[in-house]
Amino acid sequence: MSEADQGAVVDLLGVLAYAELTAFDRLAEDARMAPTLTGRAALARMAAAEITHHVRLTERLVELGADPSAAMAPFTSALDTFHESTRPSTWLEGLVKAYVGDGLAADFYREIAEFLPDPDRALVLEVLDDTGHADFAVREVRAAIAADRRLAGRLALWGRRLVGEAITRSQAVIAEHDRLADLIVTGTGDLAGIGRLIERITDAHTERMKALGLRP
Amino acid sequence: MSEADQGAVVDLLGVLAYAELTAFDRLAEDARMAPTLTGRAALARMAAAEITHHVRLTERLVELGADPSAAMAPFTSALDTFHESTRPSTWLEGLVKAYVGDGLAADFYREIAEFLPDPDRALVLEVLDDTGHADFAVREVRAAIAADRRLAGRLALWGRRLVGEAITRSQAVIAEHDRLADLIVTGTGDLAGIGRLIERITDAHTERMKALGLRP
Repeated sequence: MSEADQGAVVDLLGVLAYAELTAFDRLAEDARMAPTLTGRAALARMAAAEITHHVRLTERLVELGADPSAAMAPFTSALDTFHESTRPSTWLEGLVKAYVGDGLAADFYREIAEFLPDPDRALVLEVLDDTGHADFAVREVRAAIAADRRLAGRLALWGRRLVGEAITRSQAVIAEHDRLADLIVTGTGDLAGIGRLIERITDAHTERMKALGLRP
Repeated sequence: MSEADQGAVVDLLGVLAYAELTAFDRLAEDARMAPTLTGRAALARMAAAEITHHVRLTERLVELGADPSAAMAPFTSALDTFHESTRPSTWLEGLVKAYVGDGLAADFYREIAEFLPDPDRALVLEVLDDTGHADFAVREVRAAIAADRRLAGRLALWGRRLVGEAITRSQAVIAEHDRLADLIVTGTGDLAGIGRLIERITDAHTERMKALGLRP
């Protein structure tokens, strides 16, 4: 692996490790809005799964001779800003964020992981593998909408806001990190390749909104 | 197992399952006070371990034909009150609580678990097994005290306050739950037995305070 490639790998593992740590924080916080002990435990379990992933990624960073804190540091501000600007104000908004927001992020990281050499490609795909907890969010949101149709419009707006913020923040991160930008441009091949990547991510997002019973 | 015994088992697993869920909450919250990303991740890992234990306990409750939420419900108020009244205001207070408070609680549950039939006895002892994360708290607190001796007095007071609150709350919980009280009285045999139980817990607490470099 060339030095530039290794740098891009460290960047990707670093941003992902910090993303898992903030996801833990946020899910743990949102768990407190749960109306039932079962819901609270379900979100706490999702949070715990993120930490397991975080640990796998930091272990790999150490193996690569990188300091995990230093690898995460360049990305803390952008990810903190994203979470600050999309703080759920209700239990259902928290669930939509856990499902739609994390799903979108996972798709994006997964696309980039395809450009990495193994074992890092396999590691990233593994930690992004859906842990099955998403089913819980889908069930809860659909049940709430069935009980009160007015929720659908509000939550659909919320879902669109999440995507908008996610896209803005991702663009800023990529623009500021040349090695990540190079990895994506080289990996996709050309502008048409980037276009197809964005289309795949958008399609999957649309499917997730539909799964929740929300207009994308 | 008699019906009364089964009731006591459900009570103990219920209080413990909720204790793990609140411990998760509190550790996740305290993690945000961490001065470094490493510290934040360390506390998040401790939190994640509590959820794994919570899941094991609720699975066993279901096996016993009990509803986990119903089994936890009688204990939520006492445990929430304990955590509200011992909310750490600094990162170091959080670490002392994670080490001293959780250690004390674990010792207490472990003593009661000895009176249970297997497999519940083994399960409780297993989920209470120290996960090794405690070393992190000890290292951090000792290093902080070495750098600033004045911290030792303040943190020692905090440790004593934690024990005081824990004892008050435990007595209230036992007084309100006859099946738990019976289990302890029958298990220890007599007043002298209860005295020895309290002595063992107090001795272990003293050792933990010393390990942190604090006067018990």
